[in-house]
Amino acid sequence: MSTSAVPVNLAEKLSQFNELWTQKKVAVLNDYEVKLAKLKGEFVWHAHEDTDELFLVISGRLTIQLNGGDVVLGPGELFVVPRGVAHCPVADEETAILLFEPVGTLNTGDAGGPMTKTVETLS
Amino acid sequence: MSTSAVPVNLAEKLSQFNELWTQKKVAVLNDYEVKLAKLKGEFVWHAHEDTDELFLVISGRLTIQLNGGDVVLGPGELFVVPRGVAHCPVADEETAILLFEPVGTLNTGDAGGPMTKTVETLS
Repeated sequence: MSTSAVPVNLAEKLSQFNELWTQKKVAVLNDYEVKLAKLKGEFVWHAHEDTDELFLVISGRLTIQLNGGDVVLGPGELFVVPRGVAHCPVADEETAILLFEPVGTLNTGDAGGPMTKTVETLS
Repeated sequence: MSTSAVPVNLAEKLSQFNELWTQKKVAVLNDYEVKLAKLKGEFVWHAHEDTDELFLVISGRLTIQLNGGDVVLGPGELFVVPRGVAHCPVADEETAILLFEPVGTLNTGDAGGPMTKTVETLS
């Protein structure tokens, strides 16, 4: 077996970084990426016109603000924001999430601005 | 907000079924599905010629047998089996997993046989 046949331990990967609002790639499935991020505070309102976006909370508490109301996620809860739907994540405490979306999906979607960051790959 | 804007609680979904080796759909992201399954014992050797397959262990312990060796996953660990790679999951204790793969991916891949099951949707 090649040395790449090792599992990805999410807790170990999360211990490798402290930056907030920066997506770290930990796995690739076809043309999709599994990414981790740490969040605290409020992000920016944005939408992804071409793709749904999956949020899975690992620790903490994430509120996904939507125009019609909020969705609140605790550990072990996931939510898929449909394509084209404006949303704004906010976390009162530091929150760790797993994201699943197509390669090339921009964190700020159609909003752009200073919170836009490229995806980094964890070793 | 529509009533569909509620999070998917993985533990609650897992409490809804006891069958082993049956995939339960809990979310859809574009043309991909998030599915849950409970495993115990050994599955069948198979490969998926057209897609990678992601396994994330929620509880228990999963061994993914590969021709060159085994990958062992505990809770919070994930592994992507590349397309075309023969594999056979085995779990000594009852193990709950999350699967992520394209809609229509057959659980037994190219092997077929009596373990082949259609995906069911949890309410």
